[in-house]
Amino acid sequence: MVRSAIDGRIVNAGAKLYRKYNNKHLEHLSGLIVGEDGVCLLVRTSQSQVHVAQVARTQMFLNGRVLDSSRRGVEEPGYIGQDLTVDIKQGQSLKVEKLAALYTSRDQAISEAGLAARKASRRAGRYDAVKAEHVSVWADLWRRFDVRIRPDGPASGCAISMLLRLNMFHLLQTVSVHSIGLDVGIPARGWTGEAYQGHIFWDELFIFPFFNYRLPEITRAILTYRYRRLGEARAAARAAGHKGAMFPWQSGSDGQEETDKLNLNPHSQRWVPDNSYLQRHVGSAIAYNVWQYFQVTHDVEFMQFCGAELMLEIALFWSSMATLNSERGRYEIRGVMGPDEFHDGYPGSATPGVNNNAYTNVMAVWVLCRALEGLDRIPKVRRTELTTRLGISLAEIARWEDISRRMYVPFQADGIISQFEGYDALCELDWAAYRRRYTDIQRLDLILEAEGDSANRYKLSKQADVVMLFYLFSADELGELFARMGYPINHDTIPNNINYYVARTSYGSTLSRVVYSWVLARSDRPRSMAFFADALQGDVTDSQHGTTAEGVHLGAMAGTVDQVLRVSTGIEVKNDVLLFNPELPPEMERLEARIRYRGHSLDLRLTHDSLTVSGEDLDAAPIALSVAGKIHDYVSGTTRVFELNGGGVKTALSK
Amino acid sequence: MVRSAIDGRIVNAGAKLYRKYNNKHLEHLSGLIVGEDGVCLLVRTSQSQVHVAQVARTQMFLNGRVLDSSRRGVEEPGYIGQDLTVDIKQGQSLKVEKLAALYTSRDQAISEAGLAARKASRRAGRYDAVKAEHVSVWADLWRRFDVRIRPDGPASGCAISMLLRLNMFHLLQTVSVHSIGLDVGIPARGWTGEAYQGHIFWDELFIFPFFNYRLPEITRAILTYRYRRLGEARAAARAAGHKGAMFPWQSGSDGQEETDKLNLNPHSQRWVPDNSYLQRHVGSAIAYNVWQYFQVTHDVEFMQFCGAELMLEIALFWSSMATLNSERGRYEIRGVMGPDEFHDGYPGSATPGVNNNAYTNVMAVWVLCRALEGLDRIPKVRRTELTTRLGISLAEIARWEDISRRMYVPFQADGIISQFEGYDALCELDWAAYRRRYTDIQRLDLILEAEGDSANRYKLSKQADVVMLFYLFSADELGELFARMGYPINHDTIPNNINYYVARTSYGSTLSRVVYSWVLARSDRPRSMAFFADALQGDVTDSQHGTTAEGVHLGAMAGTVDQVLRVSTGIEVKNDVLLFNPELPPEMERLEARIRYRGHSLDLRLTHDSLTVSGEDLDAAPIALSVAGKIHDYVSGTTRVFELNGGGVKTALSK
Repeated sequence: MVRSAIDGRIVNAGAKLYRKYNNKHLEHLSGLIVGEDGVCLLVRTSQSQVHVAQVARTQMFLNGRVLDSSRRGVEEPGYIGQDLTVDIKQGQSLKVEKLAALYTSRDQAISEAGLAARKASRRAGRYDAVKAEHVSVWADLWRRFDVRIRPDGPASGCAISMLLRLNMFHLLQTVSVHSIGLDVGIPARGWTGEAYQGHIFWDELFIFPFFNYRLPEITRAILTYRYRRLGEARAAARAAGHKGAMFPWQSGSDGQEETDKLNLNPHSQRWVPDNSYLQRHVGSAIAYNVWQYFQVTHDVEFMQFCGAELMLEIALFWSSMATLNSERGRYEIRGVMGPDEFHDGYPGSATPGVNNNAYTNVMAVWVLCRALEGLDRIPKVRRTELTTRLGISLAEIARWEDISRRMYVPFQADGIISQFEGYDALCELDWAAYRRRYTDIQRLDLILEAEGDSANRYKLSKQADVVMLFYLFSADELGELFARMGYPINHDTIPNNINYYVARTSYGSTLSRVVYSWVLARSDRPRSMAFFADALQGDVTDSQHGTTAEGVHLGAMAGTVDQVLRVSTGIEVKNDVLLFNPELPPEMERLEARIRYRGHSLDLRLTHDSLTVSGEDLDAAPIALSVAGKIHDYVSGTTRVFELNGGGVKTALSK
Repeated sequence: MVRSAIDGRIVNAGAKLYRKYNNKHLEHLSGLIVGEDGVCLLVRTSQSQVHVAQVARTQMFLNGRVLDSSRRGVEEPGYIGQDLTVDIKQGQSLKVEKLAALYTSRDQAISEAGLAARKASRRAGRYDAVKAEHVSVWADLWRRFDVRIRPDGPASGCAISMLLRLNMFHLLQTVSVHSIGLDVGIPARGWTGEAYQGHIFWDELFIFPFFNYRLPEITRAILTYRYRRLGEARAAARAAGHKGAMFPWQSGSDGQEETDKLNLNPHSQRWVPDNSYLQRHVGSAIAYNVWQYFQVTHDVEFMQFCGAELMLEIALFWSSMATLNSERGRYEIRGVMGPDEFHDGYPGSATPGVNNNAYTNVMAVWVLCRALEGLDRIPKVRRTELTTRLGISLAEIARWEDISRRMYVPFQADGIISQFEGYDALCELDWAAYRRRYTDIQRLDLILEAEGDSANRYKLSKQADVVMLFYLFSADELGELFARMGYPINHDTIPNNINYYVARTSYGSTLSRVVYSWVLARSDRPRSMAFFADALQGDVTDSQHGTTAEGVHLGAMAGTVDQVLRVSTGIEVKNDVLLFNPELPPEMERLEARIRYRGHSLDLRLTHDSLTVSGEDLDAAPIALSVAGKIHDYVSGTTRVFELNGGGVKTALSK
């Protein structure tokens, strides 16, 4: 006997932290037998009232022929199945095929979820046919996304390529062409676990480039997800007494702030206030992605229609957050949290938040600059619409200009950018002592709280904060930003800053290894590779001790793939030029990948001697490429070989 | 006492034909009082299980101050309200404000419809504020869509502009930026009535250009609606033994064929088979729109991702429908219906459908040509994906080429394109006799059936069929198509064809007047204007005797606006050139409108002497314009004055 069933009594018990809460989120609606060989279960999510229908057909085959088996229905609330009884003789091989179709009431182009699932199930062929289509679609995805490196060095026993592909696989099954139009964001753990309750954070900042350079239809959908929640972000800003749009640190279906008010410290068993909703910088990450999408696609229609509105509303929010400190003659942003979650306030202070977090302030300036640029670039008719509707006066625009030139950024005496104002007055932690005392100090905040101390007292970070700036911007671009604000900054200060913060980070977030690996990639290769290897294996080795079981770390996964491609090739888009600044790491001989850029699909092949760019998109307008500082026109249908190390350029027709 | 309530007991009784069917489509879920001044009603559609939540708040104001009134809840199944009692004195003025918010479970960026409606209602301001926003949004729409003509000639007492704006208003409230992402198509009657049960036909062919030249984000959404139903169209083709995608003549939420099997003839009270599902040409209309969208936007990402797949699948369907008649040495398409719904078969034949409908065959050839062109234009990586997944072999591509050169088109001896094969053998109708006998002969099919006769016996049409070709294609483009098929056709045959069919049309469809007015616009202005006036006033005068009450005729409405803009300016896009072939009608002095084209927003001003084109989109790449046959480069930021009648060109910076 074989039982084939659908079990809708499943509970959400995958994440330790939430196990004590109500974890039954599906209500039973109906179960029924469908046709000769199928069962259908219809359930509904208890709060959001989403209907979910699943139909499963089970067939048995003996020597390739369908076997008539006696079937007995099994039904319980939330459970429907069939017991199939067959007589087989020793030596005979029985094949059981079970194919399931799933629809929800949020799916498009359906009448009702149950009907849609039944229809899909009826139309599905045999397992082999379904599998063949699946294999073909994945082959298409690999053709677009794969990054091939030679030789394929080992990272803890596994080939790097295999780990990169594991990461790409998780990315592609979380966000794919099937997500487009479905109004889904990118949860921090994908769909692989229940940690963070599926909430959306800022992880898309790290995930975006992976998709943006390969299938921008997907990044457009990611941005549209945010655009649809602009109204909620506006309401949040109003409620906080601000203008523009204040995007939430954690959000779910309707875009409201979903950050818990309290978190349980498992060490102390105390409930500790969670002030991470003060990470207002999440809006800048969205604006950054809008701009990257526009740079890579030059999708002017999207920019006019959604992108500009997002940029302007986020700019308006920063303008509204910034206050002029007349003594200093500079603007300040007070009472926020930076990316580093170990600092949610000043030691002993009753009110949460720090002032003038460098990352927040510099990103705000960058947003204001891009918003000003965007206003110039969108057509007059749209500019009139947006400025009228959003209430952006000429005085407001002048204020953006002013803030962008007079934002305050805290520095320490030695040219180190201070993580926030007052950071330099904090104590140094005795790292060695803590490493001796605890096997794992990634979550120093919890350790210190359990000791009756507070991370707020020390110069220590959970993850990259100031260093995020070096991750998101090239040295040139950062130099321009600081120059605009009237802060001279020279290139030497960058390694000093990186080293300063590397020494003071506990790596409690998987994202930090990606960032540190990235920023050290060209200046300190061995150290960078150590971070990279850690990031690459984060989920395979469960480097955070148990968190992988609650879901993979998608941002870190994306960051590793993105780094192999973009750090080696030095890809960046600026002023309508696709820049390559290639430097293949010494341990690699060759890197091959394919990217999309402004209608072109470009095959890239990088060796130590040359970069080959090849495309065949006759409908794409010529583009400007810059290789190692020299600008070239690129016309599709040609293969260009750029000799590195001062060589020339060869051009041939693409095969 | 004032009663303010929400009534969910509403039935669908707006269309005569369906009144005898079950017309109760809403099931009551719950009604409740919300806060101090609101009521909330939650219902569910009975078949598709869509939840609909409405919240209404009612406030009373005496001299601008909120009035505390005693409220008594009134609740019945499907009905929730409040009775508000107030004391007022003579001479006092009481203001009652009722604001409602509506959400459905299909809305995006919400958690649950009821919660979303409550939140929106809570956040809404006073009536004046809501109205001000509404006015501002409509002002934006008019700025993009309005067509201004001077002088504004009267059409049956109303200024033409007022009627055009009435039409634009209906278009803009049916399809707007709010539709984007909502997965809604364009029903033949918009949302104004229940005729055709909200089904989607081919009307978007007539409606598309109105939106496409003004807000292509909307036409992209219209195409995406079809793209999501490609799977269903594929399944329909398979079920009919064909390859590719066979789009349904009438469809609803899930894209299945929804054409009724029978129709009631009110004259004879007989149920007559409805064979209009044989109008396979609907797929060509979709392909035509895909191509127009691509021409106007040059949105290569959409074309690669969705557009090409639609084009290829529709081409594959036509290839599969076409059979080689080896005697004739030509391909045929048999057993279909053309746009003219009076001919669903041959006289006395037991099987429905006609062979070689000229419109169907020529459109099939056009689709095959564009699919071949599309295959050349999409990048290799996507071409590989699509041809593999859709099973398009080299032999198949060669077959497209062959069919496109050897398709059969029936001609009559005098160069008249035959509506279908065998049309010339049909009887001529005694039109005069029928006009004497019946006050309204628009629906001659029903009249003849009631007389025991059949429209299939006669040379008569409900609407434009062959003439559709002259509506959709310029004489040049049509000439190229026929030349490709080896049919010499000269420009003189066009007026002959038009006259031939004009004389044999009963105008039982509002679309026919738009088409005839369009094709006669330059050759027979008075006749064209008569058709135009009829089309323009179709719904104001209810020219079809009662059909307007069941919903406005959106295709005809769009056609009139489109005609004023595009016939006067002669706008067309071909080979990446925006063509103007202006000929302002003698009765007009000036026409002004704004169009979007490839990232440009262009202000157009046409007089008898000149065409002025002006834009200010600094991010848009230069485009090629052709005015009266001469090609010019156009760079944004400039105003170009093209003197007509052989004059020169002036260029200035845009203001």
